[in-house]
Amino acid sequence: MAQIVSFGEVLMRLSTPGFSRFEQARQFNVTYAGGEANVATALSFWGHHAAHVTRFPDSPIGRAATQYLNFLGVDTSHIIYGASRMAVYFLETGVAMRGSQIVYDRANSSLAEIDPKELDWDVILKDAKWFHWAGITPALSQGAADALLDAIQTARKYGITVSGDIFYRANLWKYGKRPSEILPELAAGTDVVIANSENIKEIFGIGGNDFVESCVNLQKAYPQVSLVVDTKRTSISASHNLLRAYLWNGTDILETNDIDINPIIDRVGGGDAFIAGLIHGLISFNDQQKALEFGVAASALKHTIEGDALISTIAEVEAIRQGETSGRIKR
Amino acid sequence: MAQIVSFGEVLMRLSTPGFSRFEQARQFNVTYAGGEANVATALSFWGHHAAHVTRFPDSPIGRAATQYLNFLGVDTSHIIYGASRMAVYFLETGVAMRGSQIVYDRANSSLAEIDPKELDWDVILKDAKWFHWAGITPALSQGAADALLDAIQTARKYGITVSGDIFYRANLWKYGKRPSEILPELAAGTDVVIANSENIKEIFGIGGNDFVESCVNLQKAYPQVSLVVDTKRTSISASHNLLRAYLWNGTDILETNDIDINPIIDRVGGGDAFIAGLIHGLISFNDQQKALEFGVAASALKHTIEGDALISTIAEVEAIRQGETSGRIKR
Amino acid sequence: MAQIVSFGEVLMRLSTPGFSRFEQARQFNVTYAGGEANVATALSFWGHHAAHVTRFPDSPIGRAATQYLNFLGVDTSHIIYGASRMAVYFLETGVAMRGSQIVYDRANSSLAEIDPKELDWDVILKDAKWFHWAGITPALSQGAADALLDAIQTARKYGITVSGDIFYRANLWKYGKRPSEILPELAAGTDVVIANSENIKEIFGIGGNDFVESCVNLQKAYPQVSLVVDTKRTSISASHNLLRAYLWNGTDILETNDIDINPIIDRVGGGDAFIAGLIHGLISFNDQQKALEFGVAASALKHTIEGDALISTIAEVEAIRQGETSGRIKR
Amino acid sequence: MAQIVSFGEVLMRLSTPGFSRFEQARQFNVTYAGGEANVATALSFWGHHAAHVTRFPDSPIGRAATQYLNFLGVDTSHIIYGASRMAVYFLETGVAMRGSQIVYDRANSSLAEIDPKELDWDVILKDAKWFHWAGITPALSQGAADALLDAIQTARKYGITVSGDIFYRANLWKYGKRPSEILPELAAGTDVVIANSENIKEIFGIGGNDFVESCVNLQKAYPQVSLVVDTKRTSISASHNLLRAYLWNGTDILETNDIDINPIIDRVGGGDAFIAGLIHGLISFNDQQKALEFGVAASALKHTIEGDALISTIAEVEAIRQGETSGRIKR
Amino acid sequence: MAQIVSFGEVLMRLSTPGFSRFEQARQFNVTYAGGEANVATALSFWGHHAAHVTRFPDSPIGRAATQYLNFLGVDTSHIIYGASRMAVYFLETGVAMRGSQIVYDRANSSLAEIDPKELDWDVILKDAKWFHWAGITPALSQGAADALLDAIQTARKYGITVSGDIFYRANLWKYGKRPSEILPELAAGTDVVIANSENIKEIFGIGGNDFVESCVNLQKAYPQVSLVVDTKRTSISASHNLLRAYLWNGTDILETNDIDINPIIDRVGGGDAFIAGLIHGLISFNDQQKALEFGVAASALKHTIEGDALISTIAEVEAIRQGETSGRIKR
Amino acid sequence: MAQIVSFGEVLMRLSTPGFSRFEQARQFNVTYAGGEANVATALSFWGHHAAHVTRFPDSPIGRAATQYLNFLGVDTSHIIYGASRMAVYFLETGVAMRGSQIVYDRANSSLAEIDPKELDWDVILKDAKWFHWAGITPALSQGAADALLDAIQTARKYGITVSGDIFYRANLWKYGKRPSEILPELAAGTDVVIANSENIKEIFGIGGNDFVESCVNLQKAYPQVSLVVDTKRTSISASHNLLRAYLWNGTDILETNDIDINPIIDRVGGGDAFIAGLIHGLISFNDQQKALEFGVAASALKHTIEGDALISTIAEVEAIRQGETSGRIKR
Repeated sequence: MAQIVSFGEVLMRLSTPGFSRFEQARQFNVTYAGGEANVATALSFWGHHAAHVTRFPDSPIGRAATQYLNFLGVDTSHIIYGASRMAVYFLETGVAMRGSQIVYDRANSSLAEIDPKELDWDVILKDAKWFHWAGITPALSQGAADALLDAIQTARKYGITVSGDIFYRANLWKYGKRPSEILPELAAGTDVVIANSENIKEIFGIGGNDFVESCVNLQKAYPQVSLVVDTKRTSISASHNLLRAYLWNGTDILETNDIDINPIIDRVGGGDAFIAGLIHGLISFNDQQKALEFGVAASALKHTIEGDALISTIAEVEAIRQGETSGRIKR
Repeated sequence: MAQIVSFGEVLMRLSTPGFSRFEQARQFNVTYAGGEANVATALSFWGHHAAHVTRFPDSPIGRAATQYLNFLGVDTSHIIYGASRMAVYFLETGVAMRGSQIVYDRANSSLAEIDPKELDWDVILKDAKWFHWAGITPALSQGAADALLDAIQTARKYGITVSGDIFYRANLWKYGKRPSEILPELAAGTDVVIANSENIKEIFGIGGNDFVESCVNLQKAYPQVSLVVDTKRTSISASHNLLRAYLWNGTDILETNDIDINPIIDRVGGGDAFIAGLIHGLISFNDQQKALEFGVAASALKHTIEGDALISTIAEVEAIRQGETSGRIKR
Repeated sequence: MAQIVSFGEVLMRLSTPGFSRFEQARQFNVTYAGGEANVATALSFWGHHAAHVTRFPDSPIGRAATQYLNFLGVDTSHIIYGASRMAVYFLETGVAMRGSQIVYDRANSSLAEIDPKELDWDVILKDAKWFHWAGITPALSQGAADALLDAIQTARKYGITVSGDIFYRANLWKYGKRPSEILPELAAGTDVVIANSENIKEIFGIGGNDFVESCVNLQKAYPQVSLVVDTKRTSISASHNLLRAYLWNGTDILETNDIDINPIIDRVGGGDAFIAGLIHGLISFNDQQKALEFGVAASALKHTIEGDALISTIAEVEAIRQGETSGRIKR
Repeated sequence: MAQIVSFGEVLMRLSTPGFSRFEQARQFNVTYAGGEANVATALSFWGHHAAHVTRFPDSPIGRAATQYLNFLGVDTSHIIYGASRMAVYFLETGVAMRGSQIVYDRANSSLAEIDPKELDWDVILKDAKWFHWAGITPALSQGAADALLDAIQTARKYGITVSGDIFYRANLWKYGKRPSEILPELAAGTDVVIANSENIKEIFGIGGNDFVESCVNLQKAYPQVSLVVDTKRTSISASHNLLRAYLWNGTDILETNDIDINPIIDRVGGGDAFIAGLIHGLISFNDQQKALEFGVAASALKHTIEGDALISTIAEVEAIRQGETSGRIKR
Repeated sequence: MAQIVSFGEVLMRLSTPGFSRFEQARQFNVTYAGGEANVATALSFWGHHAAHVTRFPDSPIGRAATQYLNFLGVDTSHIIYGASRMAVYFLETGVAMRGSQIVYDRANSSLAEIDPKELDWDVILKDAKWFHWAGITPALSQGAADALLDAIQTARKYGITVSGDIFYRANLWKYGKRPSEILPELAAGTDVVIANSENIKEIFGIGGNDFVESCVNLQKAYPQVSLVVDTKRTSISASHNLLRAYLWNGTDILETNDIDINPIIDRVGGGDAFIAGLIHGLISFNDQQKALEFGVAASALKHTIEGDALISTIAEVEAIRQGETSGRIKR
Repeated sequence: MAQIVSFGEVLMRLSTPGFSRFEQARQFNVTYAGGEANVATALSFWGHHAAHVTRFPDSPIGRAATQYLNFLGVDTSHIIYGASRMAVYFLETGVAMRGSQIVYDRANSSLAEIDPKELDWDVILKDAKWFHWAGITPALSQGAADALLDAIQTARKYGITVSGDIFYRANLWKYGKRPSEILPELAAGTDVVIANSENIKEIFGIGGNDFVESCVNLQKAYPQVSLVVDTKRTSISASHNLLRAYLWNGTDILETNDIDINPIIDRVGGGDAFIAGLIHGLISFNDQQKALEFGVAASALKHTIEGDALISTIAEVEAIRQGETSGRIKR
């Protein structure tokens, strides 16, 4: 029933209040988030029926995580429950010249311990139009990688558009496989790839003198890939960034202007908000340039909101896309 | 006994903590504020005896509102209590390119349901030197409009200086009258008008090629008006504004420099702080330019304080007026 | 698709933190709740697919309310949006000999301004097994009363079980109708009535020497009514109550033991939790006594949780029903 | 103009949140309070015009204290400002068998450094009907003792009723005088004495076999004393107390029943609330028994409220006086 | 240098604020605690030089944990740092008939992954007088069990008194060994055993008709054991418990009275506080009965304090031991 | 045993939350800090064994202060306890053009009432390599000045490097001595002086046409002085500063670039962090320029952290020293 389906780990996010350091924190703010779920969240707030698929511990903590995703409007009916633990990440939010710090504690999470047979993708993806994945999932375990491959192949079977965020966090892969053994087969079933030249080189061994050449060569090897997108962030400080994006569509390279973000409240999830905005744009507009700009505007807006989740209306993002960044009061 | 009297609706202000969105807020910060009361508040902190006149529900919520105005130092002895509800406004404070959002819930407030006979302006204004009103009050109901007209006429009778913030929020007028039917009679009894050329055109049908010409024409029609003032805000973002002001005194147009405000903590009430500063200056200094600058300095300082109320000393505002904006520590 | 459907106003609940008084509160805790929605909430946590039907303002506040119901697991897909305002209630939680205080501000809410044609009950109640309403809804406005009558008649048409909490808050009825003009027709379509002898006398003019006789006479007049239930609360203080319940099933009067609740954290929503527990029991057990006890256990547990909503598992309630009230740690 | 005038030190109250220990506290709750001011506060909430007289440092902290007393509705127009520091007390609130802890830091406070000439009691007490003092004030310094003696003598001159809480905290007296050198002269001008037999013995050297005999002997020595009152607290734990009171009126000994208080939120200020209730009763009722009961009811209610201040209505206290302690919800 | 050394896992404790449920918590309170560390903590506050030995991840989170133990006054100089993760436990604090819930997430903790060679017990225990361990440590991993055995044998070598809390949480043992394979060797080197008859039966296969007989038989098998102690808790509700303790010293069975604890703020760590009190008593008093009572008093006091740690003075515990449980204010 | 020893008053720091004004604060954040202790704190986080010497009241508040210093990793074993009170400072943190405000309440602190004989510097400084003092200590009282002189002379005796922050807050000196009577003897035993030309002129009566000339003349008079350092702050606003430093080593004047700090979270303690960084650099690097830069980097980082204390790792400071100020996320 869901139009958009995402799949990936959801972590408990434990962040220090304000800009306090880990040592100072006598409270943590608690939410639940993950790269792919963040995409589903943003799309849900814009009125899409988006379902996120993951696996949680069968415990009060797992149930609390589901309630939180419900709050964010995501369809949680395909979440499964089983053994082991909730993945966690600790966040200390930086300011000025002090960068944010993230400490992951995600080994042996419930999703890592998935048996791919627990998910029936034919049921889950029935009637869906878009499937989204990210390169972290196959890093978790063979089971997670297999489940993801099942999903992508099922999506291909039904002609569902597939987007993949190829970023793969090299230091996560601990179950014996290398990214280059797994990711190519996943990319082969993907229509929209989020990646930069470095990723393309490292994962697929495909080079190029610049982003466009890398994209051309990627598409030669993986003909299903129709779009390659990337963002570029200029970090003046932890509190002040510029953000722009690029899209190669097999023919042209499109580009946006920089958006100035100052001050930044929370940049975690900014990349996911970009992907959500891009997906919304590609689904809703017949205009790739506008879709790309909508993605950057969505990402910029995310930086003003605490938490991984972009909580917004389409109208708010569209106003920023059109350059209305003066921050006047709306009454 | 009060030297300065203001009249208008006071609302419960429910604001999300920090920069969180309405959907995220599991707490609201609670204060009580209103445009005219904000003027009285700022003046009270500077040592003026300022009384605010309004009508509250006869309930624990109404009593809590009075206690809050007491805290701000305002004389609440002329507040009356009666039927119906506390007006409310919800505030989500913006940051960077995301503007603040205000949702009003003020219909059928206690003040809107006032019977003008409940207020005895002869008693209230006895010994007062200044009366302040704003264009929102006559928008609430016929009763509120009538009570305000009584007040202005009583003030005229006793030779009290009257200031009026002509801004009238077009979408509030729902009881059958138009601003242009009501405001002219109120303006006719007013000495100091806060307005820009657009307001003057819309309300009074009085045009002009620029602000000065509008002012000249306004005074021709309303000879009681001796001063017209206006502020100009340049919004770089929700967190960064420039602010200046203009004053036409029948002869000259005075102007201040811009004050740079970065970052902004809360800009709600900034206009009211300007008016308070101007009134203080006109009462205390024999120098309109200095009064105008004091108003802008007061407004700038307000932007650094959470809540509608400007909590400050004269010395703090005066230092900013003199250009001391480097923010050094005071010990 | 929902098994259980409830209909009624949802209010923003603004409660003072801890046991602080309204005057002391500089923050309010914010949730969204209402008698009928509280029933749906509790049932959702126990795994029932429960949908709540209401009308919210088409504003960020209305959207925030929907997100909150999502968080509680309720199906919000039948909520409609339109003009006017969010109903609000202010709560100061009592302790020891000081009782809680509630101030309602619900006039002119979005639900009160409903046009019954906005809801298509044939769609909403399709496949439902249970419909729940309360006597406050017809007190709001003619539109709300008509919408509720539509719902009950549609439920009857499909053979859906209907429960009604007959408590009607006499001082709410302000649109020209009296409870005795409206409630009888609603009760005529109801299977399970929550009421005490006084309610039965006041609303239906049906007397009796005791609860059983009142029930007998009620059923004679309204043959659809198959069960009448009531709770009895003994208030030792705001922090210490005893709770029990009665059920008359047309033949027998069933009764539970008292549960001792000390200390109470928040008793608002305790009655709704009882109804939810009873509905769960009647649906799930073939044992009315057990269902009644499950209702009282659910209500007792609610008293230990801040907020109107009973957040619990079936196992937790069942353990209390079986007398496990020693509060040992679960690891 | 004030009907009731109190005089004494006001301290910044820094209390740990909830029941946390001093070592755990990373925040303190901040209010401003003092025994005599607490009496004025409670009376102000009941509609009396009550002014409190004290001396604060001429600093932002002193100004913040005045704003807080304004919030509590007390007339602060007679407060004077000058050298030195704000008195402070630190509070850790106990629970169960753990008692509260108070650490005073009040040496060299602004009030201790008062020059009695700074206060013009003829102006302050003009039109007053009641003056209240406590035995802590003369313990602070010779200046404070002299200022208090001035006040009492002025009150006598105008026939104002004087109440004095004779409790004198033996370990405070550090400026060279003993309680027995100072307090007798103050008591000689006092109508209503709050004291128990021990105080009477220690301060005045007046014994007796029981409370009544002590009172009889006290009045013989100090004929102005017309009433002697005392409370009796039974401490079952820090969370559970019983409270009653006694009043000797020169003829009879009156007594109340115990009120059961469980759980206690904050017992600091409970004695002051009793005095306030008694004063209200003596002023408002022609019935000493009722006045005494009103005092005990006020004190009991205070125990349910965080902070020194009793924030309440007359109706709330009266209901408790009449035995309505079941803590039902008020809507 | 430390007089008292404890060894065991320290977990990050993430507890919901107040009595809120896991689903409701948008903040967690954060402290760091563990059974054996809790013993060291309490003893440190009483002036003993107590060191705790554990292993933390070499990360900001591990460093934050050390800082927290520093705050509690424990000597952290023997803590080692290395691979893997911080153990975590989630706590929802119960009230009335709702019990607390604990969810552990401690698999693969830094301590579980210890190599026993990382600790040089000859250095650590040099000059120590007491070593304390608990049955959870050998449940974690073979490495942890071996490290503990090293510690006990080193303690024996130097004639250090050893206490062991034999409670072993059956469901933790996942590395292939059974409690009965490991615990006997540890108990053989222990002087003071905290255990009840059931533990003695399950672990050592040693029965008895009552506690004394079990103790007699235990000592026959393990002659090093000179004292066996146990507490008995009567749970009236999560908020109201009675607590007493027993001590068998090879000759006599000593017993305390019940202490009534109402209300309970946080009972986690109550057993550890008992052990700390007992150790303090055995070290400081020549009176086993008094030591046992000091242990129960310490445990009771712990129930009034949020967090695992007993923050107290000797005087506070001693007053409770002597029956001063009326909770009067200390000034 | 400590490598680095500092001596000076530690105050309870009571700061308003966020940027709220004193009048608005209903909570204060509580930490404990002082200029010299801040130096020890920063050094402790970098792995130095640093002890701070001070005197606290023998009260729960004094113990809480010690626990807080323990938390910060400082060796508190040389702290002494005795009569009188905890020094306090109140802080309102400024933003934009509004500067922070500090109100001190430090008269008659425990340290001011020290008897120099209470400290045995031979024991305290045994094995130390560095001693740090500041000009505020001799301002407190003759006893504090004498204790400091003892410390410096003992340090000289053992050849310990001595650093002194000569800033002396003219308005503190109230016990009869002038800075110029006391500070020269202290400076005479000091190796590293933190001072600017103005301080040198005012205290020592030593002039110069510029900083270098002042330094040259200072060294002529005080040959023990080998380094003179100073920082220069450019205040654009309370939220935006530039910071650089100078060091004269008897031969050369070294200088750093400006570091841009925007936004500032809390600048209190920034100067102390600079000194700590400089000391660390002088101890650890054989490169004065690098040491000076490390000091400025440490100071800049401090501005991003709430509280006086610089909580950081060497790696974090070193990265900033090397120009990595882009604030990217560290994972």
